Amino acid sequence: MTERTQLFPKVGALLHGGDYNPEQWLDRPDILKEDIRLMKKAHINTVTLGVFSWAVYEPQEDEFHFDWLEQIMDRLYENGIYTVLATPTGARPAWLDEKYPDAMRVNRDGVRNRHGLRHNHCMSSENFRRRVEIIDRKLAKRFGKHPGLILWHISNELGGECYCPACQERFRNYLRAKFDNDIEKLNHAWWTTFWSHRFTSFDQIEPPFSNGEGSIGGLNLEWRRFNSWNMTDYMKFEINILKELTPDIPVTTNFMKMYGMLDYRQMAKELDVISWDSYPRFQNDYESLWDTFAENAFDHALMRSLTGGKPFMLMESAPGLVNWHPFNKLKRPGIHSLAGIQAVSCGSDTVQYFQWRKGRGSFEQYHGAVVDHLGRDDTRIFQEVTQMGEELEKLREVAGTNVEAKAALLFDWDNRWAIFDMAGLSKEKKQYEQTCLLQYKSFQKLGIEMDIVSMCDDLSRYPVVVAPMLYLLKPGAAENLRNYVRGGGQLIATYLTGYVDENTLCWLGGFPGDSLTELFGLYSEEIDTLYPSDRNRAVFADGAEFEIRDFAEILKVQDAEVLASYGEDFYAGTPVVTRRKEGQGTAWYVGARISQEGMEKIYRICLKEAGIAGRPMPEGVECRVRKAGEETYVFYLNETEQAVSISGEKGTELLTGRTVTDQITLKPLGAAVIRRSI
Amino acid sequence: MTERTQLFPKVGALLHGGDYNPEQWLDRPDILKEDIRLMKKAHINTVTLGVFSWAVYEPQEDEFHFDWLEQIMDRLYENGIYTVLATPTGARPAWLDEKYPDAMRVNRDGVRNRHGLRHNHCMSSENFRRRVEIIDRKLAKRFGKHPGLILWHISNELGGECYCPACQERFRNYLRAKFDNDIEKLNHAWWTTFWSHRFTSFDQIEPPFSNGEGSIGGLNLEWRRFNSWNMTDYMKFEINILKELTPDIPVTTNFMKMYGMLDYRQMAKELDVISWDSYPRFQNDYESLWDTFAENAFDHALMRSLTGGKPFMLMESAPGLVNWHPFNKLKRPGIHSLAGIQAVSCGSDTVQYFQWRKGRGSFEQYHGAVVDHLGRDDTRIFQEVTQMGEELEKLREVAGTNVEAKAALLFDWDNRWAIFDMAGLSKEKKQYEQTCLLQYKSFQKLGIEMDIVSMCDDLSRYPVVVAPMLYLLKPGAAENLRNYVRGGGQLIATYLTGYVDENTLCWLGGFPGDSLTELFGLYSEEIDTLYPSDRNRAVFADGAEFEIRDFAEILKVQDAEVLASYGEDFYAGTPVVTRRKEGQGTAWYVGARISQEGMEKIYRICLKEAGIAGRPMPEGVECRVRKAGEETYVFYLNETEQAVSISGEKGTELLTGRTVTDQITLKPLGAAVIRRSI
Amino acid sequence: MTERTQLFPKVGALLHGGDYNPEQWLDRPDILKEDIRLMKKAHINTVTLGVFSWAVYEPQEDEFHFDWLEQIMDRLYENGIYTVLATPTGARPAWLDEKYPDAMRVNRDGVRNRHGLRHNHCMSSENFRRRVEIIDRKLAKRFGKHPGLILWHISNELGGECYCPACQERFRNYLRAKFDNDIEKLNHAWWTTFWSHRFTSFDQIEPPFSNGEGSIGGLNLEWRRFNSWNMTDYMKFEINILKELTPDIPVTTNFMKMYGMLDYRQMAKELDVISWDSYPRFQNDYESLWDTFAENAFDHALMRSLTGGKPFMLMESAPGLVNWHPFNKLKRPGIHSLAGIQAVSCGSDTVQYFQWRKGRGSFEQYHGAVVDHLGRDDTRIFQEVTQMGEELEKLREVAGTNVEAKAALLFDWDNRWAIFDMAGLSKEKKQYEQTCLLQYKSFQKLGIEMDIVSMCDDLSRYPVVVAPMLYLLKPGAAENLRNYVRGGGQLIATYLTGYVDENTLCWLGGFPGDSLTELFGLYSEEIDTLYPSDRNRAVFADGAEFEIRDFAEILKVQDAEVLASYGEDFYAGTPVVTRRKEGQGTAWYVGARISQEGMEKIYRICLKEAGIAGRPMPEGVECRVRKAGEETYVFYLNETEQAVSISGEKGTELLTGRTVTDQITLKPLGAAVIRRSI
Repeated sequence: MTERTQLFPKVGALLHGGDYNPEQWLDRPDILKEDIRLMKKAHINTVTLGVFSWAVYEPQEDEFHFDWLEQIMDRLYENGIYTVLATPTGARPAWLDEKYPDAMRVNRDGVRNRHGLRHNHCMSSENFRRRVEIIDRKLAKRFGKHPGLILWHISNELGGECYCPACQERFRNYLRAKFDNDIEKLNHAWWTTFWSHRFTSFDQIEPPFSNGEGSIGGLNLEWRRFNSWNMTDYMKFEINILKELTPDIPVTTNFMKMYGMLDYRQMAKELDVISWDSYPRFQNDYESLWDTFAENAFDHALMRSLTGGKPFMLMESAPGLVNWHPFNKLKRPGIHSLAGIQAVSCGSDTVQYFQWRKGRGSFEQYHGAVVDHLGRDDTRIFQEVTQMGEELEKLREVAGTNVEAKAALLFDWDNRWAIFDMAGLSKEKKQYEQTCLLQYKSFQKLGIEMDIVSMCDDLSRYPVVVAPMLYLLKPGAAENLRNYVRGGGQLIATYLTGYVDENTLCWLGGFPGDSLTELFGLYSEEIDTLYPSDRNRAVFADGAEFEIRDFAEILKVQDAEVLASYGEDFYAGTPVVTRRKEGQGTAWYVGARISQEGMEKIYRICLKEAGIAGRPMPEGVECRVRKAGEETYVFYLNETEQAVSISGEKGTELLTGRTVTDQITLKPLGAAVIRRSI
Repeated sequence: MTERTQLFPKVGALLHGGDYNPEQWLDRPDILKEDIRLMKKAHINTVTLGVFSWAVYEPQEDEFHFDWLEQIMDRLYENGIYTVLATPTGARPAWLDEKYPDAMRVNRDGVRNRHGLRHNHCMSSENFRRRVEIIDRKLAKRFGKHPGLILWHISNELGGECYCPACQERFRNYLRAKFDNDIEKLNHAWWTTFWSHRFTSFDQIEPPFSNGEGSIGGLNLEWRRFNSWNMTDYMKFEINILKELTPDIPVTTNFMKMYGMLDYRQMAKELDVISWDSYPRFQNDYESLWDTFAENAFDHALMRSLTGGKPFMLMESAPGLVNWHPFNKLKRPGIHSLAGIQAVSCGSDTVQYFQWRKGRGSFEQYHGAVVDHLGRDDTRIFQEVTQMGEELEKLREVAGTNVEAKAALLFDWDNRWAIFDMAGLSKEKKQYEQTCLLQYKSFQKLGIEMDIVSMCDDLSRYPVVVAPMLYLLKPGAAENLRNYVRGGGQLIATYLTGYVDENTLCWLGGFPGDSLTELFGLYSEEIDTLYPSDRNRAVFADGAEFEIRDFAEILKVQDAEVLASYGEDFYAGTPVVTRRKEGQGTAWYVGARISQEGMEKIYRICLKEAGIAGRPMPEGVECRVRKAGEETYVFYLNETEQAVSISGEKGTELLTGRTVTDQITLKPLGAAVIRRSI
Repeated sequence: MTERTQLFPKVGALLHGGDYNPEQWLDRPDILKEDIRLMKKAHINTVTLGVFSWAVYEPQEDEFHFDWLEQIMDRLYENGIYTVLATPTGARPAWLDEKYPDAMRVNRDGVRNRHGLRHNHCMSSENFRRRVEIIDRKLAKRFGKHPGLILWHISNELGGECYCPACQERFRNYLRAKFDNDIEKLNHAWWTTFWSHRFTSFDQIEPPFSNGEGSIGGLNLEWRRFNSWNMTDYMKFEINILKELTPDIPVTTNFMKMYGMLDYRQMAKELDVISWDSYPRFQNDYESLWDTFAENAFDHALMRSLTGGKPFMLMESAPGLVNWHPFNKLKRPGIHSLAGIQAVSCGSDTVQYFQWRKGRGSFEQYHGAVVDHLGRDDTRIFQEVTQMGEELEKLREVAGTNVEAKAALLFDWDNRWAIFDMAGLSKEKKQYEQTCLLQYKSFQKLGIEMDIVSMCDDLSRYPVVVAPMLYLLKPGAAENLRNYVRGGGQLIATYLTGYVDENTLCWLGGFPGDSLTELFGLYSEEIDTLYPSDRNRAVFADGAEFEIRDFAEILKVQDAEVLASYGEDFYAGTPVVTRRKEGQGTAWYVGARISQEGMEKIYRICLKEAGIAGRPMPEGVECRVRKAGEETYVFYLNETEQAVSISGEKGTELLTGRTVTDQITLKPLGAAVIRRSI
């Protein structure tokens, strides 16, 4: 029985709101007043302020203007609307870049940015950090005790990298620390004798500039790690200032899906609340609506897993459309509500938007907003947002409940970076992220909730763990997996498992390395890369056959049961799927990129063995569960254009208040949330 | 009854000639002599000299050689051949760049060009302007009174942009003037509070460098306007020198179709004669020959409209082929003549070529020429050029007559730039230029001549005005359109009308903005962007249906007649085509990208209402009319491989001298020009 | 009767070995010891050492370590394994770049590289050359007399270009020498009067920087020639050092197929032995296996032709796979042996690998090797390598024999560069290299061995010479061709013959220029470029018709026999294939890009006329012959998956030792090598 975790006890509800930029309308008090009226009409209870307000707070160095913000926060609070307050460091005033050019990043070509765009800053710049500390302190002192304040929002969508001299020097210091100031340790770890790349001093090391050293896997990986470390260090710098002055106000920063340049798992450790920005391409021309929702659910699951199980926040989503997709299609009626309820079903306690009101000009003047240039409250979008607000109020009791997963998928940024950078196989076909997503979708089809965790996490609470393409083994990872299996876990690994150590040095003596050959009872002698039109087949003992594309390992099985063999090519008849019992559990190995239908067959066998029953839904329907204490809330989302009926449910449907005794019928694009009474 | 405008009374004929580069052959007097013989054989009456002669005129700074040119011009004149004399500033000598590196441009990455290519110059460089003034003065003094001189040709194909410090400073001064030296005016116009982009000084503003500020729509647009202004300023600098010394010699510069970086309408105001370079891709693999000719006619119409109705010049075209198309296919027999007669039919009083004789080396050694490396006068190309010369002589009396259009299409560079830069919809599908072209082609199919004019021009002489994607409304444009309709005009606007003002700030209170919602009796609540495979339909009252792609606005009609509604999707049944009477005219609104067949249906209804009868031609045939005084010349061009007969014509066919009493038959790829006697 | 040329009399066998990098494992004596055992097991008799060892030889400036290498070479020699010793200049230590940054190249954008990658050096850097001389001298002194040393290997895969100030100055000096220090000679040769590009001083000339002068064909070509000259100069610098100290040790450097940036024919003059690196994409998805092998044979033929007929070396090939193809597919069983035997059949006396053992990290950790990370000797790859070793021993007697070709294909780097750079036709369809390859394949189908030679080589020993797209005529080339035909040769030229001279100036008076119009009895008036979907046909007198794509010349025949005419378009009925007897031979002209079936028809007629009988093989089978003295060795390679029988052979099959009396049967992917006794 898990307990509720109320993210914002002061609010005591699911949050509904979004980014609000009143500083753009200070000359239009009529509009600011209308905003309050419209927010109340739309059931908004929270807004995010100050994300890009630095130039208004501090138009000249050391000249500060906060009165306008205080008036806004006061008025909002008077009207029952809470504030998430951002530090304004997501964009810098022009005067700052003019006076402190080192605040601007240097790119991979070695060229310093000019002032502009959302102009992300250099994380190492001392001048920048000094100005940040001043403005953050001012903000925290002035607003830290404001009754409407419920959360600090650090900067905005942190990302990118910087190659400036200061970052380079920090990189070298980071390496000195990592390699005990011993250049020969680094030379060995990076195998620099190859191509005569040996360094004789840490001073010789540069980041992987576009016209510099790009061929050392260890260097490339360490640069990614350093960049993530340096961004986290910068974020902690901001957090520390706020925590000193307002220790009781939680902090977050807004993440971006599986963003490639930062290890969110490291950053998450420094945050009180996880939040993220979700912009799916609904009803596109390349996949079903269910697929798009499933990818979104995967992203939600990644965020949920970063919290260690607590609720998280959907910080940004688009009312209507965005302006930066290749085709900015309108969200069809119903999608808005369905996506909002999906967020809650996945563990979010908020549905928030970018943005409240469209600005008249500049880059996001066409980004969806609750209030359009038109300014009316009878628009379709405004009405759908209002409906969402009403629905969130009906779901109020869900706030603080938790999602339990019976399976976990291993996803680590180190592994991702190493796979991306490895020179081999086929650059265009590696598709690590997509492969992870596909496994998640298969589990969703099988009716099993999945978390997204690290190879070094405690896995014991998951009956089944899937480890796609576990190429890089971090220290302790192999041991962790072995213990997991011995303790009764079902571990399903695939081709490309255990090729390299944390420095991208290949394991000697057989893949999967670090002694995992023993766990799986086999080694991979070769890995074949197929041309796009090449195919092989996995043939199971029961005659079932599944297509193989892209990658196929030639396995030498020493001590494992063979479940399927190759059907084609010179390795026809050799094993492709195996399992081996170890302790209380089983280690499964899938040596090739088998079609998802084939993977699902394997998962079914494995789930059955683990004694786990999934609850598959009709095609196009998504089902999730949140729990706390005695209460169980079941969410049904119909992601098709037809009505769908589901039976076996009992309880109260919260959106309508109706009692359910067995069957519920979901309207096209409709949702139901049942407080279960079974 | 319009009067004739003879561009070159001294010549008193249609010009036939082209770029001539004798400076490449000064060591071959035999070839220079042969050139004269061949020119006379080919009925050449004009050549363009000196386009790239600077290094020969002035091989070292302040050392001048003009005797060779004088001898050439004398000999040409003695043989009845007139000279268009270029200022040589289209390409700079190496010594100039070596001594004055600021003459070389800085690119968008902030890197200064090296000497090379056609090396366009910095328009702001004081050193460059000083050297230009010296050489231009020398040329004007030496040749200004030469009896063969009929026209100054400023530089060559002006284009491009420069980001050097001098251009930056001129940009800032341009902005200071535009915004009354008030940075807050600029901040408001550019909506810089978004993303904290507020400037506190004009000194902080930079052009949109590739690694700088690219997210402010107002800045991007103003940079385009400035660049166009600066190029015009440079051009005026050259013109002023020539006008001071030779006030009676007209000036031109050669334009390039709808060239994207310069507002030709601004430049045209400074020129006496409009001329342009035409290089269509005839008989390609993606469209019919009629389509290719129609696009060329559109370009001709744009040039004609720049003159305010006077004849213009076809300054360059290719005998045979060019060397820079992706596939440099030969012009098939007959195309040369057909294209030349088309030029005249559209209002050109010249058919000129690049180039007379192929140079032996360097970049354009394979660009089509009248005389090939082969040097013979019995080649197909030479014979076709000769035939063209004979035909132009037969059409001599057409010189100075005018083309009258009953419809106009609104095309403005400001609007084009703003649409291109807007962040929304779908970057790849906006296709503003192509949309303009398609409307022009539809009117050609309907047998209606069309001009290409500005939204701020006097439109009263056009019964019908089409305004595709009139996204940006310049000051006064809405008023101009309203007055046009009230005065009896038929105005057809489309989706994406009136979203922003001249600074790209969105109009508040509903699109189409600036009070155009009242003129059309509706507002657009949302605009949907379709994926490439998505389709909708426009359903008319009579049951006719037409496909919709790409863009679809959801309209709220307040006071307009609905002519067609959507057939699909959640907005099925809502209006897509409307009209509303206002004063003596009608304002039509087409809310989606309807197929051209659908647009033509609308145009037909509208033309009928306006009482205008078109004269549609058989498929693949083009028909145009030039008039002056009592005379009417009708041009028929058969752009098919079959013979075509047309009836209802009476007069004298000028190319054959035959009398036409009703029917004329056009040979495959053949033309007829009738002096009408009906 | 040709004599044997034993490349390495000391070894007296075909070499079998590859790149060996023991310096990566100096801390693992167990592995170094195991290497020797494995090499002997795999029948390795030669390894290449020291390719990337500079940082281990000289970890700090002037601190040298060679003992380790001596121990390795000693132990190898004791075990019967010879050494190819590389100069280590293919990659520089970090300290060198740190101290002498001028050793790093400047790229086409004018930016100096940073230390990294395989960091090719500036060929002009004095500092670099000084350090090279020191290390090369040390190596030569220490190891020049080692009994295991059989060959010097200069640097590694020389390539690329440098735009640094030193290279620029050498370029200018090169031009001064070429043009007799007379800038006007250069101006004329480069036709710089076009676009006002005249230089007044050699000091003004820069290489074709990306933001500089790219429009002068002569300059672009001369830069390519200079770069090749400069690389050769650098290579000679290394060779001279070695030759001074070890005059008896031959030298090579490893070439890369038809590598585009260096004229290998110039470099070959400085080398004792030609060697190259072969990495075909076997069993890909875009061509047959026979096609892939045929391209590889073409590359072998190019190398063989560079030697003037002596055996050459296959220096690198991949056991298993490489890691840098788009799809790194495993070599299927049998391919390894087949490719090795093909190399020998084409004239190679070696089969060598990159690499012996996979390094644990860095860029090529997944590049195929004899010994994998796995470390076992029972892998498929190890077994196939071992089999190859055994086979090479069985073919020992082939060493030193020669390949005789009855046809030659003209391929010159000057011509290739000029075609690539020419501005005309269609950039994407020129495909000069592919066109050469297609002719080679056609001759292979016809059963005729072909060499790849220069337009200026003595051609008299070849009955047939094919000259595809002989666009640029070097001085003396036309004369050479004329004499070849007069002396009895069959010369087959195509469209695009003789357009320009060595400076890319067009020939006046008709193509093919330099008086070749007389040899062929025709001139080309125009050249048509077809769109990709356009087609024409060549119609022969016997009614046979063949498709024409891409390019078609309109020929004016003055004195030649017409064999085929165009079937379509406005030039239907005009000649497309002609021939003209001159002296004892015939000059054939093919005016269009006719399908290979059509070309093969022409070749058949021509071969018959020349009295040469080919020996066509069944589809998918390759056959080659090596000879010396009385001995003839016939190689049959079955590049299909089916067994194939061939009759008419008599002798001893060397791989099996069996006697062949008429018929031999080749297994799928099998080979046979017959010592012929007919």
